[in-house]
Amino acid sequence: MSELRWDPIKLNWVIIATERRRRPRDFIVEDETAGTAACPFCYGNEDKTPPEIFAIRPSGLPNAANWRVRVIPNKYPALRVEGDLNNRGYGLYDVMNGIGAHEVIIETPDHNRSMADLTPAEITDVLTAYRTRYLDLRRDIRFRYMVIFKNHGTRAGATLSHSHSQLIAVPLLPPMAATELKVARTYFSEKERCIFCDLIAFELREGQRVVRDFANFVTLTPYASCSPFEVRLYPKRHSHDFALMNDAQLTELAVAMKDMLLRIKTVLNDAPYNFILHTAPPMHRRAGKPNHWNSLEYDYHWHIELVPRLTQVAGFEWGTGFYINPTSPEDAARFLREAEL
Amino acid sequence: MSELRWDPIKLNWVIIATERRRRPRDFIVEDETAGTAACPFCYGNEDKTPPEIFAIRPSGLPNAANWRVRVIPNKYPALRVEGDLNNRGYGLYDVMNGIGAHEVIIETPDHNRSMADLTPAEITDVLTAYRTRYLDLRRDIRFRYMVIFKNHGTRAGATLSHSHSQLIAVPLLPPMAATELKVARTYFSEKERCIFCDLIAFELREGQRVVRDFANFVTLTPYASCSPFEVRLYPKRHSHDFALMNDAQLTELAVAMKDMLLRIKTVLNDAPYNFILHTAPPMHRRAGKPNHWNSLEYDYHWHIELVPRLTQVAGFEWGTGFYINPTSPEDAARFLREAEL
Repeated sequence: MSELRWDPIKLNWVIIATERRRRPRDFIVEDETAGTAACPFCYGNEDKTPPEIFAIRPSGLPNAANWRVRVIPNKYPALRVEGDLNNRGYGLYDVMNGIGAHEVIIETPDHNRSMADLTPAEITDVLTAYRTRYLDLRRDIRFRYMVIFKNHGTRAGATLSHSHSQLIAVPLLPPMAATELKVARTYFSEKERCIFCDLIAFELREGQRVVRDFANFVTLTPYASCSPFEVRLYPKRHSHDFALMNDAQLTELAVAMKDMLLRIKTVLNDAPYNFILHTAPPMHRRAGKPNHWNSLEYDYHWHIELVPRLTQVAGFEWGTGFYINPTSPEDAARFLREAEL
Repeated sequence: MSELRWDPIKLNWVIIATERRRRPRDFIVEDETAGTAACPFCYGNEDKTPPEIFAIRPSGLPNAANWRVRVIPNKYPALRVEGDLNNRGYGLYDVMNGIGAHEVIIETPDHNRSMADLTPAEITDVLTAYRTRYLDLRRDIRFRYMVIFKNHGTRAGATLSHSHSQLIAVPLLPPMAATELKVARTYFSEKERCIFCDLIAFELREGQRVVRDFANFVTLTPYASCSPFEVRLYPKRHSHDFALMNDAQLTELAVAMKDMLLRIKTVLNDAPYNFILHTAPPMHRRAGKPNHWNSLEYDYHWHIELVPRLTQVAGFEWGTGFYINPTSPEDAARFLREAEL
């Protein structure tokens, strides 16, 4: 059983997940699965994964080989759905059981196409799977936050090369989400405006960090980018919750996603990257605890953060939390704007 | 000129340092310098670096080839000493000039020996250089924090393989330092005890996370380790400031450092790692600002954090601030204790 452990000096929870690797020799970096015969995410290998949780397929039985998108439990989950938290103290520390959910979204049956290569219609299917899983998991009141993210390339943490994203539900609000939500709440209570809406309006006026301005979505390089060629994708109209996007909106979002991924792939020669979907947490109440986030529809603004992995997180970043970025966001936006797709 | 830019949503400063690399094609990972002819840190190549700031050598002129440890300015500094901050606003953001110091400590003239291979006497020289540079730089009242760190191996961010560490002085208190200092201050004000002293006492009693217990120093695997085989080295007697260590103490510290580095090298097959020296910030006052850290001698406790780079920081970690660690600190401590050195 994994554990969530509290560091009382750094003020952070860590997941000690011993399901997969433990011993020193287990850390030798493995080659990615090369062929389709061995790949558990390929057509025809459906029996090599745990049974699917959700899939998009024209018709037919679960786990049959005619799907377009497939969602399965992670075979080596960092957190498990079964059990209770058993939140307890230990000396100066705190610890609870590693309860949560860890799912894999297989984005395409084709081993050799990355997400940037998918059509907008195929990306719409992926986004639909995201929405479905969010809506389902937020009914479990143990989960305080869900994050969907993608690791593309070994250096970005992907252990299988077949295009996929992951969903992790955690029983605690993570520190970065807590900061964003608190900032947005404070800003709104002072100004009665969304800080993200103000930021988007400012960036659209300034223009130099805009990558692409669509009717209802916009991609920007953040003014204080931690690393080179970071991009954020925002809905231009205020919306706190990704899962409230309707089918037409997901179709438009897929076009903006494809554009963002293709620009990054083209300009950076298929560099490894991560993207992370930031959206409002579930708003259910817990016994004895007020829920501070029950009016997030005014404060928060969902978005997608993309981080190419071109530089290493080194001692300075580990030790301070400050980042050194050798490419200005203005230069990055220009290179991405001028990409020939 | 580099810039320090403020992210008003993530609440963090980022250094936009465009001295070294900018364009997409500049991110192709370069091979490390292999031979000694091309290496600017080797004996005889002293003219390939900027003039030295400090060195330990038996006798002779600066920049001559008979040194044991050498400190030079970084050729591509993230921050520069010259100029003023020009702290200003820009829309929702804040920005200031990239003022600071960025130095390189060359730990040995020998291209082929890593820090773990140095003798305790040689490591004492390196620690003496650290102390000297800390004491000198803290006289500059623009600098609010200094961090000494080491990147060992390409995957840990080292761009030259010749063994070296770095010192960066920044004009702001970094978020991780601010959290540690605040926690220590709060704990002391409640209990009149140092939180680090309490933690060390608890860990020495428990024993299962102790790697090596010396007379005046101890190495531990942290209970909530973010990544596998993390180790922290603490002085057992309370001390807030590394720079106050006398020569005899540095000699003892060098023995503990050597032991820690050699265990990591042996158990993890010379894995890449970072270490970071955490010590109290300079305590000078600024005009118009109270200095909250002018009694740190009671609260804070300097230490060294070592992080082997065995796993990738992936989308989940980037997006939440939570870490997933696949090796329990108890297992890690056992492997390190049982290493045959």
